[in-house]
Amino acid sequence: MPCFVYGGMIASLIDCHGTGSAAAMAYLAQDREMGSLPALRFVTGALNVSYLVPTPQGVELELIGSFSEIKARKVVVDITLSANDVICVKGQVIAVLMPESMLKRD
Amino acid sequence: MPCFVYGGMIASLIDCHGTGSAAAMAYLAQDREMGSLPALRFVTGALNVSYLVPTPQGVELELIGSFSEIKARKVVVDITLSANDVICVKGQVIAVLMPESMLKRD
Repeated sequence: MPCFVYGGMIASLIDCHGTGSAAAMAYLAQDREMGSLPALRFVTGALNVSYLVPTPQGVELELIGSFSEIKARKVVVDITLSANDVICVKGQVIAVLMPESMLKRD
Repeated sequence: MPCFVYGGMIASLIDCHGTGSAAAMAYLAQDREMGSLPALRFVTGALNVSYLVPTPQGVELELIGSFSEIKARKVVVDITLSANDVICVKGQVIAVLMPESMLKRD
């Protein structure tokens, strides 16, 4: 299937878009500058992706996210991925504030 | 987070494991040799991934799939991903027989 985008890559795009959007919203909700300390970073608690039609290669892909839940430690982002103005994929990212345990390194 | 596996990569692992398992089961269900023609290839209709705990790098990861639905054109595979005998991720792949439209190339 050389003419379609690999579904795992699409899942990654949605994942990154979701956690990034969650962090941006968290800063906004706290009326803080993006990137200011202490850092607000989100990780993926759950990722759900529905592949509606094959996603073509070689064209611009547009991801649009909206927020269906915004809490201090949990943000849910619903995302569509479109190519040529056709929605190819719908996804949802349940993003959670990065737990302290993930910052520790053995 | 250099010590944990990227969630998008995990989604790809589960995706590939799911569609591959679906194809293998489809051949088995038809009592056919793997890879015999006409090819039975599956694509992902939906991919759902729950990240339970961070997945460590540098150790062997074990994916185990079981089938919760087996139909001619749809196979559902439930997958766990473990590291050091701890389940880190649970996933489900709803795999569908590759539609003819995906074989066409413009």
